[in-house]
Amino acid sequence: MITLDGLAIKALGERASSLIEGLNAFSSQEDGLTRLYLSKEHKEACAYVCAAMETVGLTASIDALGTVHGLLKASEGNPSKRVLIGSHIDTVRNGGSYDGNLGVVVGILALEEIRKRGIKLPFDVEVLAFGDEEGVRFPTTLLSASAIAGVLDPSEFDLSDADGISVRDALKALGGDADSASALAYSRDETLAYLEVHIEQGPVLESKDLPLGVVTAIAGARRFSFTYKGVAGHAGTVPMGLRKDAAVSAAQLICEIDKVAKAEEQFSLVATVGDVRIKPGAVNVIADEAMLSLDVRCEDDECRQQAEAAIVAAANRIASENNTPVEIIDYTAIDTVHCSKRLQTLAGEVLQDMGLPDFRLMSGAGHDGQVMAQLCDLGMLFVRCKGGISHNPLEHCSTEDMGYAVEALVRWLEKLGSHHSSES
Amino acid sequence: MITLDGLAIKALGERASSLIEGLNAFSSQEDGLTRLYLSKEHKEACAYVCAAMETVGLTASIDALGTVHGLLKASEGNPSKRVLIGSHIDTVRNGGSYDGNLGVVVGILALEEIRKRGIKLPFDVEVLAFGDEEGVRFPTTLLSASAIAGVLDPSEFDLSDADGISVRDALKALGGDADSASALAYSRDETLAYLEVHIEQGPVLESKDLPLGVVTAIAGARRFSFTYKGVAGHAGTVPMGLRKDAAVSAAQLICEIDKVAKAEEQFSLVATVGDVRIKPGAVNVIADEAMLSLDVRCEDDECRQQAEAAIVAAANRIASENNTPVEIIDYTAIDTVHCSKRLQTLAGEVLQDMGLPDFRLMSGAGHDGQVMAQLCDLGMLFVRCKGGISHNPLEHCSTEDMGYAVEALVRWLEKLGSHHSSES
Repeated sequence: MITLDGLAIKALGERASSLIEGLNAFSSQEDGLTRLYLSKEHKEACAYVCAAMETVGLTASIDALGTVHGLLKASEGNPSKRVLIGSHIDTVRNGGSYDGNLGVVVGILALEEIRKRGIKLPFDVEVLAFGDEEGVRFPTTLLSASAIAGVLDPSEFDLSDADGISVRDALKALGGDADSASALAYSRDETLAYLEVHIEQGPVLESKDLPLGVVTAIAGARRFSFTYKGVAGHAGTVPMGLRKDAAVSAAQLICEIDKVAKAEEQFSLVATVGDVRIKPGAVNVIADEAMLSLDVRCEDDECRQQAEAAIVAAANRIASENNTPVEIIDYTAIDTVHCSKRLQTLAGEVLQDMGLPDFRLMSGAGHDGQVMAQLCDLGMLFVRCKGGISHNPLEHCSTEDMGYAVEALVRWLEKLGSHHSSES
Repeated sequence: MITLDGLAIKALGERASSLIEGLNAFSSQEDGLTRLYLSKEHKEACAYVCAAMETVGLTASIDALGTVHGLLKASEGNPSKRVLIGSHIDTVRNGGSYDGNLGVVVGILALEEIRKRGIKLPFDVEVLAFGDEEGVRFPTTLLSASAIAGVLDPSEFDLSDADGISVRDALKALGGDADSASALAYSRDETLAYLEVHIEQGPVLESKDLPLGVVTAIAGARRFSFTYKGVAGHAGTVPMGLRKDAAVSAAQLICEIDKVAKAEEQFSLVATVGDVRIKPGAVNVIADEAMLSLDVRCEDDECRQQAEAAIVAAANRIASENNTPVEIIDYTAIDTVHCSKRLQTLAGEVLQDMGLPDFRLMSGAGHDGQVMAQLCDLGMLFVRCKGGISHNPLEHCSTEDMGYAVEALVRWLEKLGSHHSSES
């Protein structure tokens, strides 16, 4: 185990904090952070990231879709291979400072450290600052990562924002070019891995008192709506035994969903009923309709499907028992994207080298890595998130934890380099 | 048992149907029935009821609060005693034809039959057509019955409708007079009983295949709201074990309320959650607030209070188990009003005389009788209601059932007369 230098970790964290602070300046709102894809603020942030990359000795450029590239050439070995490090610099409306931005900043600082420490790497390393991860401005998401991964659907350029401006026109206005997007795709043969550091956006690391965790997978997800039909009636005049109460059926299903999700312990299944609507919704009228939404996620698709089947069976059983027919709508499932076992093992070793446990957790939220996994092996590290709060101005990552993240990424790259050299 | 003449019952029903039809003409909406207290339509309906009363030989008048009185003088015995028969001729917006109106019509036709058949009664009988039972136009309810019962609060005359017109001014415009209201109160000593025939507004008689039932009580009621506070979070990133989900707590309480109400069989307890509101109400966000309403009614106040206590205890237990604090608001309880045992017994005998079972049921809805019970003994008969549907244009009462209701009221008055004569 290599002893960590507390002061060095603190200094790295302060460097990260200063860059995060710098990026906060590019916002369309004065008292918070809003930076949408292809906005004026996004263009300014791209220039800031370029400058930061050049300052630490990377060759910086902005591609046709507004992704910032910062290249560190291989110091040894086969120069045609590359490892990518990335995250995004767009934000949600009134978002936090760390979501996405942290991964870009940590990537830049890790490469600065690689250079400073004279670490030899047998591949090029490139930091990517994507622009369209949140999908807030346009009805698209992960557009810029999809171009690099070579899985972009060009019809997405014709989609428009709320003001009727298409992605294509917005790109042109900022000096980008939709028609050059296909040239951005990287070769699968040449790309060894995509590594992403991201704030957890959940409370798991905080609850375990850990600064970092190794991501096992980006969870698959499916959404449903269940609508029970009952018979409206006077709250005073219909005896309990003669009721067809849609609200009671919905409540029973919510309890059942909670039980199904809590019974599953191995694969981090989560199931959420976030929306419930009762009609007519009057204090003295028995409900004749009750709708509830369901969002199920799990890192194991089969486990998720089993839970979905159990929930649907329960929904139908409740419908039949209470004489309240149910309409079930299920939306297309997104399959789980697994992180590379090899990259997880290496990251776990890095954490142990740093005196931390090799703690693994799934990502319940989507990330650029979801698309990048179609190009190459995916590796992700999560950084502790205060109170699990994200997509909110209260989002917070401590300076020390950011220092740990930079140090871990440096070591992860180094270990990947040794591993690669010994393989080739 | 006296044999019923099917044709006579049918003829009585057709008379009732024709009067109900006549009253339908007085509505502020063209394609349905809306007749609010002290509206132009209410005044027209009062005139129609007066005329109908006079046609059958009653002495009709309209009092200072718009209540129509139709008097049949005692044919024998002590003329200073009276029995009242009543219900209301105001309606909810887009209401049904039978709610209230049926009781007035049945009252008029029963007195017509008393006269036709030459039945001697030892007391005056007066049919009352009240105007303010539904409480739709003004924030008052049972105003006109309260005046007769001598329990009117004169400050209610200063309450205004949505157009800012006070009850006092509305009365004046229609020829009424708030200041004369106190003179309307009947003497407790002189008033023997108040009898009301009303459509059930629930499905119990239909489910038992019975035209009529004897009401045991007007159920006491209490309302609550329960608001659980949770912690919002991303549907994907917060593991089940770390959640404080307000929606789950609300659902568990709804299930518990249903269980508590269904476990109680002896006293016809009903408990209804008619309104549920989840915040923020997004499919992918764990709920940080969940409100549910509760309406509990029971003909036994102690039984209702026990159920309320069990529900409140469950609400607090769930709050504690799920770490989601609950705010409980409870509104003033309305105590149960019991129908007179003697009048129930007499009505039960009448039903048996007519070849029907002596079926008893509680009233879960409020009625003019609730206030009249403060003046004298209360007796109520319910008439079968199609599908249990009320406060709705689909409200329906069959012609035959209306015939049964008139016949039963005639016999109830006759029996009460014999009973009274033998007592005095």
